[in-house]
Amino acid sequence: MLARRLRPSAARWSQQCSQQWARAYSAQAAKGSPDIDPSALTVEKTSSPKALLDSKDLIFGRNFTDHMLSIEWTAQDGWLPPRITPYQNLSLDPSACVFHYAFTCFEGMKAYKDSKDRVRLFRPDRNMHRLNRSSSRIALPTFSGEKFTELIQKFVKMEERFIPKQKGYSLYIRPTIIGTQNTLGIGPPGSALLYVIASPVGPYYPTGFKAISLEATESAVRAWPGGVGDRKLGANYAPCIVPQMDAAKRGYQQNLWLFGEEGYVTEVGTMNMFVAWVNEDGVKELITAPLDGTILEGVTRESILELAREKLVPEGWKVSEQKFTMAQMKKAADEGRLLEAFGAGTAAVVSPVKAITWRGEEIKIPLSPGKETGPLAESFWNWMLAIQYGEVEHPWSKVLSE
Amino acid sequence: MLARRLRPSAARWSQQCSQQWARAYSAQAAKGSPDIDPSALTVEKTSSPKALLDSKDLIFGRNFTDHMLSIEWTAQDGWLPPRITPYQNLSLDPSACVFHYAFTCFEGMKAYKDSKDRVRLFRPDRNMHRLNRSSSRIALPTFSGEKFTELIQKFVKMEERFIPKQKGYSLYIRPTIIGTQNTLGIGPPGSALLYVIASPVGPYYPTGFKAISLEATESAVRAWPGGVGDRKLGANYAPCIVPQMDAAKRGYQQNLWLFGEEGYVTEVGTMNMFVAWVNEDGVKELITAPLDGTILEGVTRESILELAREKLVPEGWKVSEQKFTMAQMKKAADEGRLLEAFGAGTAAVVSPVKAITWRGEEIKIPLSPGKETGPLAESFWNWMLAIQYGEVEHPWSKVLSE
Repeated sequence: MLARRLRPSAARWSQQCSQQWARAYSAQAAKGSPDIDPSALTVEKTSSPKALLDSKDLIFGRNFTDHMLSIEWTAQDGWLPPRITPYQNLSLDPSACVFHYAFTCFEGMKAYKDSKDRVRLFRPDRNMHRLNRSSSRIALPTFSGEKFTELIQKFVKMEERFIPKQKGYSLYIRPTIIGTQNTLGIGPPGSALLYVIASPVGPYYPTGFKAISLEATESAVRAWPGGVGDRKLGANYAPCIVPQMDAAKRGYQQNLWLFGEEGYVTEVGTMNMFVAWVNEDGVKELITAPLDGTILEGVTRESILELAREKLVPEGWKVSEQKFTMAQMKKAADEGRLLEAFGAGTAAVVSPVKAITWRGEEIKIPLSPGKETGPLAESFWNWMLAIQYGEVEHPWSKVLSE
Repeated sequence: MLARRLRPSAARWSQQCSQQWARAYSAQAAKGSPDIDPSALTVEKTSSPKALLDSKDLIFGRNFTDHMLSIEWTAQDGWLPPRITPYQNLSLDPSACVFHYAFTCFEGMKAYKDSKDRVRLFRPDRNMHRLNRSSSRIALPTFSGEKFTELIQKFVKMEERFIPKQKGYSLYIRPTIIGTQNTLGIGPPGSALLYVIASPVGPYYPTGFKAISLEATESAVRAWPGGVGDRKLGANYAPCIVPQMDAAKRGYQQNLWLFGEEGYVTEVGTMNMFVAWVNEDGVKELITAPLDGTILEGVTRESILELAREKLVPEGWKVSEQKFTMAQMKKAADEGRLLEAFGAGTAAVVSPVKAITWRGEEIKIPLSPGKETGPLAESFWNWMLAIQYGEVEHPWSKVLSE
């Protein structure tokens, strides 16, 4: 009976896998394979424009603009012509690899209206850089960041009426790449979809800062050396929900991710974590975990570090990307050296922390008198927003051409 | 201006998140919330049945049967009535959380035709147990494994004509749960879809075993204590492709996952890893990594361990679920004590290994004279298939009622 199996399925499978690998290599290698081509963009406008929601009714990531930007990719043909279409459902085969093997990565960006009604993006080059790094880590295609940014700008201009005009409001932009190949065989996807949707959002702190309490998570680990915690993969998010729910159940707004027996402080919820203290040498220091492969390379993180080097170092501050532990934080608190702590991310910009519960003990973190933030977090918030909303001219803020 | 924001979006977001958490708790807690109800099943038959492919043209996970089984879940209403419909695309909002945050987990099962033309499943209770564990780890809903198995049986009976009759062939069954909530806010999904598709597949070794060469991966780590490597989440798969491609590029069929500076042997590609050696005490030992949270709880792994305890221990073998290192394997090979190595999983059952390259050195692994397998892997393969195809009666093999 075995002899009759002349063209057996397993051999075909193996052959198919090799072809997939081969396609993936050549697609990655071939510099000549079609990159994203903004000039090939087609636009289909919606025939039923949405009514704008009142700003007070905006819920983060719940309501979307009229259109979406989509670019298909195949291993054979590279990036196909970009399309702006009415916002619509994705129709995918139930065997599509995104549904089974988490072939997905994404970015979070914002478009802002400045006082002159111009539209601005904040450091889109950083998002493009990171999206390419995320995509290549899971065998999805890469692209020219400049060309994709050009398309995002066209898309945002089309959706301009959805950008609220008040400071603090913005249009949240979500570029996503998913693997779309219809097969359960595990390998590099032979097809993918890069798409962008956008959601008008309000300020994180509409009535002023609201400092949060954290619980240090001991039962779960977000990322590890040699893992993918430094890439913005979907895979890093679903596993974080239950630990966050556990912290929420006990009354904490977020959980704090630690690493190793030493209790290294890594991230807070889905934000990077900053601490300010007077260090053991008596020097004022702003510290955040280093990019050792376990930390998301936050655009806000990077921006805060650059601002700190520009504005705090001349005032005698030390700015450090170095490992630090919960024990060090507790010692600093006990000795009155702990100054401030805050999370940093695109959604909140900064998120002041007022307490961390760790191994049953609460470490209190100082706030400015009568405020729900410390002075440093407030300064960074002001500096960042001034740039994002174009109140000061800065190369990080990119004005969209008319 | 701030004062005007009476019902601000961020407060709404925070409110919405709390509601999501609350819904998720109550959905998990409420034993009374509707479980899967097989009696509510509705069936819509296809009007265009597919032609059966010739067995030789089957490619793993590429062609599917006529129908699919779907069960929607909402936090509010629990599991909705199950539906069997024609196989069709899923239509999802581009903001659906599966596309962004990898809310997906799955199972791999097989249905077999025995010599009396009866349909058999292999240990479906183990798959149901694991799927529930995977789902709850990423805040997706759980369900009664018995009730879902009842529905899978009905579905498989409907698709019976797709199960090839030859031994070694089977119908690969893929249950999948995805989060379907349409929001970019990160939290427990308020809705989900559990669905099952099925693909007729051929034997992994149609012309007899084909031993594989592995490359031990040093640059990436699959799983970590406190991580999710023991759950069958999509999140564990996409990040594995590039390391596998790297190994393939250098001519190895699979990569071998190690852990820690000690070089603990964990998994091979997407299979569990077994090694047989004469240990340092001079005892014949079959060893595999323990379920310490970094190892997928393979149904084939568990079955091989049980068969080994039943059949090998009386012959003087020791059967161990214990950590072991590459250095120990190399020492055993150098001293002539290394007997065999093989991967174990649903697709291949067993996959004999003939060599492992580790830090530039190749460790040769013995095979039976003139064969592409060792004697142990061959025995397990024979034992497993005899049970799966009902050649021996065994409680692991579940005959579907007519």
